[in-house]
Amino acid sequence: MTTARPAGSTVKVAAVQSAATDDRDQNIHRALDGIARAAEAGAKLVCLQELFASLYFCQSEDPALFALAEPFPGPTTDAVAAAARRHRVAVVSPFFERRAPGLFHNSTAVIDEDGRILGVYRKMHIPEDPSFYEKYFFTPGEATALPAAGESVLSQDGFGMFRTRSAAVGPLICWDQWYPEAARIVSLLGAEVLCYPTAIGWLAHEKDELGEAQREAWEIMHRAHAIANGVFVVAANRVGTESSIEFWGNSLICDPFGRVLARGSTSESEVLVAECDLSLIERTRCDWPFLRDRRIDAYRGITSRFLGGRPGSP
Amino acid sequence: MTTARPAGSTVKVAAVQSAATDDRDQNIHRALDGIARAAEAGAKLVCLQELFASLYFCQSEDPALFALAEPFPGPTTDAVAAAARRHRVAVVSPFFERRAPGLFHNSTAVIDEDGRILGVYRKMHIPEDPSFYEKYFFTPGEATALPAAGESVLSQDGFGMFRTRSAAVGPLICWDQWYPEAARIVSLLGAEVLCYPTAIGWLAHEKDELGEAQREAWEIMHRAHAIANGVFVVAANRVGTESSIEFWGNSLICDPFGRVLARGSTSESEVLVAECDLSLIERTRCDWPFLRDRRIDAYRGITSRFLGGRPGSP
Repeated sequence: MTTARPAGSTVKVAAVQSAATDDRDQNIHRALDGIARAAEAGAKLVCLQELFASLYFCQSEDPALFALAEPFPGPTTDAVAAAARRHRVAVVSPFFERRAPGLFHNSTAVIDEDGRILGVYRKMHIPEDPSFYEKYFFTPGEATALPAAGESVLSQDGFGMFRTRSAAVGPLICWDQWYPEAARIVSLLGAEVLCYPTAIGWLAHEKDELGEAQREAWEIMHRAHAIANGVFVVAANRVGTESSIEFWGNSLICDPFGRVLARGSTSESEVLVAECDLSLIERTRCDWPFLRDRRIDAYRGITSRFLGGRPGSP
Repeated sequence: MTTARPAGSTVKVAAVQSAATDDRDQNIHRALDGIARAAEAGAKLVCLQELFASLYFCQSEDPALFALAEPFPGPTTDAVAAAARRHRVAVVSPFFERRAPGLFHNSTAVIDEDGRILGVYRKMHIPEDPSFYEKYFFTPGEATALPAAGESVLSQDGFGMFRTRSAAVGPLICWDQWYPEAARIVSLLGAEVLCYPTAIGWLAHEKDELGEAQREAWEIMHRAHAIANGVFVVAANRVGTESSIEFWGNSLICDPFGRVLARGSTSESEVLVAECDLSLIERTRCDWPFLRDRRIDAYRGITSRFLGGRPGSP
């Protein structure tokens, strides 16, 4: 973007927070209903939650679960694209992608308000923890632009910014949100709104001790990405208990100063909508000009696994 | 560090938050008194505030102010080193450094509890805003280790980790704290405690509108660095009004989960002390293993100024 957004360049942004069931049609219906409700409230960009078409199936390493995957584009993106076109709203639309035999991704399409799919972002950072066995299911991915992508931009090594008619969207997924590098690169690509479809929750045996600290840490990271980069951030997280995970909701939308514009409840299905003045990005970045002073000559260490160790050791 | 810290490897860490005057001796005295009080409370590591020996002089571009600078080592580091040795406590000790004629830095020494100076870190990210004219005064710097540095480690391009007897310290200064890159690199160097001497405050004309958001953003960034890297973070900020800036205090110490262990008031001089269990670093990083999943193959964009722009443009 070479010209500044004028003051008052507001766009309503939404996050759909929902409980999931083992009925795919019902999950899709809830997402489409969320899109309709968001559009009715004036939203021009909607972020759906990670893997919304199914339960969070990564709680067991069962090869039968690969049958849940679908191609890109596929039935889920088709259904959402139709809803996007019908309601004139852009959608960040996650799905479980079967890219080739034995090659699966945790993906999200970015669909413009005319229903055209701009591209797909395939989750780059893949977690693997008790009850979150994602390294079994998902190959680490990268962003790919489709012909409709227009003025979207991809980094040389996997991240992407997709320019919808209302805003430049930076799609990232769940575990990505713990990595300042991801938020930074997507922001440098020109994203105005970082969107994080998410599935995060509590495990019963540690909730008492760590639950509130975990939820708070999760929120702080989103807000820090907004502040460090001067962008809006949206996270859509599911609710409800599925097997051993109590998904904690708390979807949020925050502004470039890290101020929370909307925050979901811990357990209710709901559609969050917030008015985002995109000209605040310019103002915030000029007031506290962090991007001006980055020491790009001094960050090579970021591409290292570790820099410490005892002197003389490799 | 190649072996894990055993559970219960606690060390008390302190931040000295103080008002400053135009009397250098009095400012030094207050810092030394803060060191003594911290040590009396059991602290083994103390973080002093940025440029504590003077008022925050960067509010006007007056060349006469360069006379405030001193060599490294110099009278301020000598006085603090003597106090460190006397009280057996390591100190992160900022000063205005005259490195050569016309070459000045915003620096901090890292002094071990035996009074030996391990090295100096010279602020890498230099701000320049109304009433914070630091680009006039300070050349961007880098870390340098002295012979006493022992198992300290420097990055190839400016950051440093200094291993005191109690903890591996990552010194950074004020504006550095808005850059996740700096916190990441210092953590990858092996730092266990990031220390941010700071001088940040409110300008009267914007305090009503932005004051609370600014202070909160500042705190969020520190906590996010702790979370993203699984390290302790200490920030020491001054209090009191000097010319057009009301320094907001709120010094803080937080744990690797971003939980605030101690927080200073907005306007009082005080010494914060918190017990930090360094084994929590290992536990936190194993519970949520962010360092495991960094995509070091995909972060080259971090060393770019900008990655966006219209397709086809350079």
